[in-house]
Amino acid sequence: MALGVYSEVGRLHKVMVHRPGLEHARLTPANAADLLFDDVLWVAEAQREHDAFCGHLRDRGIEVFEAQTLLAEALALPETKDWVAAHMLNEREVGIEGSVRACQWLEQAAPAEVAEFLIGGIARADVQREAGLEWLAEDPTTMLLPPLPNFLFQRDPSCWIFDGVTINPMTKPARKPESLIVEAVYTFHPMFAAERFPVWLGGDDQDWGQCHVEGGDVQPIGNGTVMIGMGERTTPQAVQIIARALFRAGSARQVLAVRLPKSRSYMHLDTVITMCDRDLVTLFPNVVDHARTWTIRPGDGADDLVVEEFAGSLPEAMAKALDVPRMRVVPTAGDRFGTEREQWDDGNNLVALEPGVVVAYERNTGTNTALRKAGVEVITIRGFELGRGRGGSHCMTCPLEREPLA
Amino acid sequence: MALGVYSEVGRLHKVMVHRPGLEHARLTPANAADLLFDDVLWVAEAQREHDAFCGHLRDRGIEVFEAQTLLAEALALPETKDWVAAHMLNEREVGIEGSVRACQWLEQAAPAEVAEFLIGGIARADVQREAGLEWLAEDPTTMLLPPLPNFLFQRDPSCWIFDGVTINPMTKPARKPESLIVEAVYTFHPMFAAERFPVWLGGDDQDWGQCHVEGGDVQPIGNGTVMIGMGERTTPQAVQIIARALFRAGSARQVLAVRLPKSRSYMHLDTVITMCDRDLVTLFPNVVDHARTWTIRPGDGADDLVVEEFAGSLPEAMAKALDVPRMRVVPTAGDRFGTEREQWDDGNNLVALEPGVVVAYERNTGTNTALRKAGVEVITIRGFELGRGRGGSHCMTCPLEREPLA
Amino acid sequence: MALGVYSEVGRLHKVMVHRPGLEHARLTPANAADLLFDDVLWVAEAQREHDAFCGHLRDRGIEVFEAQTLLAEALALPETKDWVAAHMLNEREVGIEGSVRACQWLEQAAPAEVAEFLIGGIARADVQREAGLEWLAEDPTTMLLPPLPNFLFQRDPSCWIFDGVTINPMTKPARKPESLIVEAVYTFHPMFAAERFPVWLGGDDQDWGQCHVEGGDVQPIGNGTVMIGMGERTTPQAVQIIARALFRAGSARQVLAVRLPKSRSYMHLDTVITMCDRDLVTLFPNVVDHARTWTIRPGDGADDLVVEEFAGSLPEAMAKALDVPRMRVVPTAGDRFGTEREQWDDGNNLVALEPGVVVAYERNTGTNTALRKAGVEVITIRGFELGRGRGGSHCMTCPLEREPLA
Amino acid sequence: MALGVYSEVGRLHKVMVHRPGLEHARLTPANAADLLFDDVLWVAEAQREHDAFCGHLRDRGIEVFEAQTLLAEALALPETKDWVAAHMLNEREVGIEGSVRACQWLEQAAPAEVAEFLIGGIARADVQREAGLEWLAEDPTTMLLPPLPNFLFQRDPSCWIFDGVTINPMTKPARKPESLIVEAVYTFHPMFAAERFPVWLGGDDQDWGQCHVEGGDVQPIGNGTVMIGMGERTTPQAVQIIARALFRAGSARQVLAVRLPKSRSYMHLDTVITMCDRDLVTLFPNVVDHARTWTIRPGDGADDLVVEEFAGSLPEAMAKALDVPRMRVVPTAGDRFGTEREQWDDGNNLVALEPGVVVAYERNTGTNTALRKAGVEVITIRGFELGRGRGGSHCMTCPLEREPLA
Repeated sequence: MALGVYSEVGRLHKVMVHRPGLEHARLTPANAADLLFDDVLWVAEAQREHDAFCGHLRDRGIEVFEAQTLLAEALALPETKDWVAAHMLNEREVGIEGSVRACQWLEQAAPAEVAEFLIGGIARADVQREAGLEWLAEDPTTMLLPPLPNFLFQRDPSCWIFDGVTINPMTKPARKPESLIVEAVYTFHPMFAAERFPVWLGGDDQDWGQCHVEGGDVQPIGNGTVMIGMGERTTPQAVQIIARALFRAGSARQVLAVRLPKSRSYMHLDTVITMCDRDLVTLFPNVVDHARTWTIRPGDGADDLVVEEFAGSLPEAMAKALDVPRMRVVPTAGDRFGTEREQWDDGNNLVALEPGVVVAYERNTGTNTALRKAGVEVITIRGFELGRGRGGSHCMTCPLEREPLA
Repeated sequence: MALGVYSEVGRLHKVMVHRPGLEHARLTPANAADLLFDDVLWVAEAQREHDAFCGHLRDRGIEVFEAQTLLAEALALPETKDWVAAHMLNEREVGIEGSVRACQWLEQAAPAEVAEFLIGGIARADVQREAGLEWLAEDPTTMLLPPLPNFLFQRDPSCWIFDGVTINPMTKPARKPESLIVEAVYTFHPMFAAERFPVWLGGDDQDWGQCHVEGGDVQPIGNGTVMIGMGERTTPQAVQIIARALFRAGSARQVLAVRLPKSRSYMHLDTVITMCDRDLVTLFPNVVDHARTWTIRPGDGADDLVVEEFAGSLPEAMAKALDVPRMRVVPTAGDRFGTEREQWDDGNNLVALEPGVVVAYERNTGTNTALRKAGVEVITIRGFELGRGRGGSHCMTCPLEREPLA
Repeated sequence: MALGVYSEVGRLHKVMVHRPGLEHARLTPANAADLLFDDVLWVAEAQREHDAFCGHLRDRGIEVFEAQTLLAEALALPETKDWVAAHMLNEREVGIEGSVRACQWLEQAAPAEVAEFLIGGIARADVQREAGLEWLAEDPTTMLLPPLPNFLFQRDPSCWIFDGVTINPMTKPARKPESLIVEAVYTFHPMFAAERFPVWLGGDDQDWGQCHVEGGDVQPIGNGTVMIGMGERTTPQAVQIIARALFRAGSARQVLAVRLPKSRSYMHLDTVITMCDRDLVTLFPNVVDHARTWTIRPGDGADDLVVEEFAGSLPEAMAKALDVPRMRVVPTAGDRFGTEREQWDDGNNLVALEPGVVVAYERNTGTNTALRKAGVEVITIRGFELGRGRGGSHCMTCPLEREPLA
Repeated sequence: MALGVYSEVGRLHKVMVHRPGLEHARLTPANAADLLFDDVLWVAEAQREHDAFCGHLRDRGIEVFEAQTLLAEALALPETKDWVAAHMLNEREVGIEGSVRACQWLEQAAPAEVAEFLIGGIARADVQREAGLEWLAEDPTTMLLPPLPNFLFQRDPSCWIFDGVTINPMTKPARKPESLIVEAVYTFHPMFAAERFPVWLGGDDQDWGQCHVEGGDVQPIGNGTVMIGMGERTTPQAVQIIARALFRAGSARQVLAVRLPKSRSYMHLDTVITMCDRDLVTLFPNVVDHARTWTIRPGDGADDLVVEEFAGSLPEAMAKALDVPRMRVVPTAGDRFGTEREQWDDGNNLVALEPGVVVAYERNTGTNTALRKAGVEVITIRGFELGRGRGGSHCMTCPLEREPLA
């Protein structure tokens, strides 16, 4: 079977993840905000938690690919190093002298080391001698290349929608290198180079303007429909261009565009709603109840888009799209305070391994119990450290191959 | 032996703590900043961690008092309820109608319930009927009495310095009820009422002006010396008034006043330096190396204070005060990033149970290992949840009875 | 005629103001936020603008009292200096040594100099020698006494409601000295000491708890009714206590309590609505249209308050209270952007000198023109500098004597 | 004489400015921060102030070009409209449907109207019918194209350095359209198209990575030397690439790179130092005294750069570069508070019209007086409104043609 993601809950075969590492060891209270990360992690423990999470995936027969390993494997090819030199270590990114030094290192260093530092960042201490005016003029804690702690959330930099992928132009400049890395992997790594697949949007050295999208906002729920949140991180401009690309290829027949409030707590659509079974979602009512939804469908003309507001609730729109009588809804559990707490702790941010089987942080005991009562098998994982980055199992996974709904 | 704290590392006999509870179950991403708490806790797990912490204290023969229990026991006396009604549930605090309702409840409810809600806060849902204009006019999530999540950090609202105590006028208005609660306990609970002890500063319905102090800044290191940090939370005004009160009573012969930068990361003196043994401190060099220290001693006149800047480092000032040849120093472990990370995770915030025995979060593996190499016995506790409030074992304990240095 | 304010638009006889001065010369980009002021003023020009404003008041026969002059006159009495020493320059406020120095200065210095520095703040450079640990331990830019730039807004620290006054316990601790200063004036200055008037709330060394009120929220619109906004700066607790005090004295028969959103732009009720004539208000519809209003009236019992939500709009509530057929409404002028801009520039913050005569900043040309078309005489003043503090003619005036509506 | 800027104080012949307009009429308290503007302006008055400023320039025989007029003139050419359609109104910027509508308007509308709206922004009310999902999904106050209030500061989007220009890749994405507009003017307007001049950096549809520069940081002080600040808005990466381009062309022999603290108050080099005469600078000592300076000179190899830290002060580096015995220095006037206040009010941000003749805001009376005592002719302008955007005469001018030093 080829790469492709045809639903949110069909059987998952291949997934890409990233284990916490050097980029998290460089998080401090002083730099965390600039690096767009909420808290400092105990890295060794976060790794243990992540290993256990991946173990559960493998136990279910899912092939788990580590993005850093894929990058290292791609870097074994000289053309990948050339591409990285041109895109990430050029003069404009790291300065004239910095670029000379960095490219020398790139050429000589082992691919695994290169991969680690491209993700973990390059600090002053990593460079043997001074690397030019950058070092001289900057604060000593400045990094030549920034650490990418959000690379833990593999959901965001790219997303597979049916038989193609988007390489996401993300809103925050600090996350741009993450998209470059996945672009290098998709372009050069043999597993991807061996296949041909369309890129719906992003990549290829283009200026994407106000087209911003992060994978946490994108859910290919199946039956020809993809649901995309528009809020702090994804713009309507991007949604339409994705829709048109999908329609042109005949890969989808409908996009559900969902407007989210611009808020740190509800940054992505998958922080407030994810699917757990063919006809079951868990959601945070405080936000989803007030979301507005538009359907986008192909029009008569070649590239026409027909946009209409959907009169009902989001679960109703999903039921209609998926052709089920109705979606069962498991809201975030708790009283007025508890629901906000479990939403914040990613209680609704679940990845399904197959219909009716999801992975969740153990800490959201209320929502997990409600899901079990609804017949969902909930595999719990520890998230003492992983959860500090504000992302759950859905955020941490980039499905590469998933079956359609039966 | 009477109540009193005569050192930072002498054998600890009695300590007051507070287990996480209702006040933490009411923390949400939306209200945490106003309630001065950094993150949302998984309460059940935080309780387990706290129970384990207290277990270690009891294992060493230390009597552990739960502040909420002490409050409940004090509330069994009608005069305590009267005092609470007058100080916390009066018209000016909760409104005319709110006060009537709250005082009716106070009179009828069981002391344990009253104690829980005074600390945990009173929400709209807790009140049977509307409680007047407060409810009508406020946002529905407003609390009649606010939750006190920082009550977890028993170090702050009061501190025992030698044979007396301060009832701390804290800087942030949101923490004022914490000081009222400990004042009620010290005034009415039989264990305290049975003894007579001086109050160096605070309490007693007075306006303390710019005299602000929090216990995290106060360390009675012994040999007649107390060390007090001045920064975001403790003012020089308070330091001088405490000094004068101590000198008048002959309870101390010197105050070391230490200037800290105003920063959230180094809010209290005990976030950057604590004692582990008679001649050993652990400290965060980035801050302590730049701190300025003044000695305050009694002058010739009755109430004169002699203030002089100390020319050496803080550990040198401590060594001189404690009459030891020199203080051994265990700095926060790690590289440029690591030291900032372990300081942030309370790596230097340790409570000693006796000379050379301290309690620390397990996550600070670097600093803990360095302490062990220096001969300190480090009892580690989990702090996945407890640590989210940004306080370690020193912050969570209010010693009531501790021996002087031999 | 005695002191007292019986309406918002009846003929104004006496008013208290404060000319910009030393406290504004000490505003910098670095300290402005802590001092609760929005911008830095060109002081000489602000004084010229303020002088012109007062000139217009005097031209209309209004007696204008400068608060700083009143304070200086009060300080000619030894008992005023004693009171100031005890309340503003005591050890708890300025430190042990600082208090000694400050009180020596207070005793020897001319009243005018004392008044200037109590309002303008005392900086390090103002003190001959070091004043103790405060100076040693603090950042060199710290002030012994803070400047009070918001004292320009005489509306806030106290407000006359019919035949009495409130001495306002303001929300922000930084503004507390302003209320102390007006309390000193009202207590000791011969003009006030000669009269007897009730204090509805505030002052007298009491702890007012959560009772916060700022005069910008209070409008004694007349006919026995006072309108009070509840938002960022005024609490329902205070509203009820003021209401009860007024009812007990028989000085009012109704309070209209208006809920405002908590926002910097709409900090006080008078930033969104003020009266211009017996039956005309100017208001900012974006906020006032969504405000909720409650009536508070005396109940059967001695101190009972009856609180009921008013079903109509705020102007309807005012019309009913004032017994006029309806209030004419002049909304902030402009398109979607313009209304927000003129509201921000105090377009609705007008003081009436007599029915149908108001003072406004010239910059709000749209709203001023609309008012003129409605028959209001609009006296315009420059506000290039005065307006930077975010307050208009209503904010800058504390009426002491104003006639009731005919 | 050809376009080109050969000094900071040589006789000025041609300058580009922008009069406040629609983009400022759309500033509100709610959107100002996102639009990177500090305050709301009274537009009509700001225009009067700007007109008076330009009048002074013309009185001295300087040709003043209005950027909006230049844009309108360029838009008379169809190829300019095509370029604008492709770069500013394409699908990725304004959405699929929005782009169709916007390009129809672009084609039909008069050039003057197009120029006004490209700078002033396109609001919902400006579009006849709904323009697609962008409108449907966004908050009603969202703009299709954002207003560009900082376009008032013509110094920033481009800067002429000797015989060439940079088209600046600015740090903040919100300012990107400003650079596109000047690129369109420089590319298509006959006055510029008639000449050939090198572009040292920027423009031409390229990704400039971390090369950020804003003209406020760039001062071609003359004698082959350009001084460039590196701080919040300009990176070392850009400085080196500009240096290399200048050296390659033989247009300069040295760059002085000056490190500034990252702070809102000292955003650009010209907020803390500008030249007033051949050997006289005005500067803000609190920042300039702590700045570090590096010289960058051509090395032996074709493209080698030699970077060395300069041991002396910045004025010493300038004197050496300009071959004068020493620079006279007029510091910001005032006491500890006053200097911060006059720096904030652009007291050091002066444009010279010829040696010894500068334009300054009248409000900085202290610094202006000191300059006059030093023999500088200071032409004062009002800046009640212009100054609210935090920029003085240097920020508001883009010199196009200026003589070298004699």
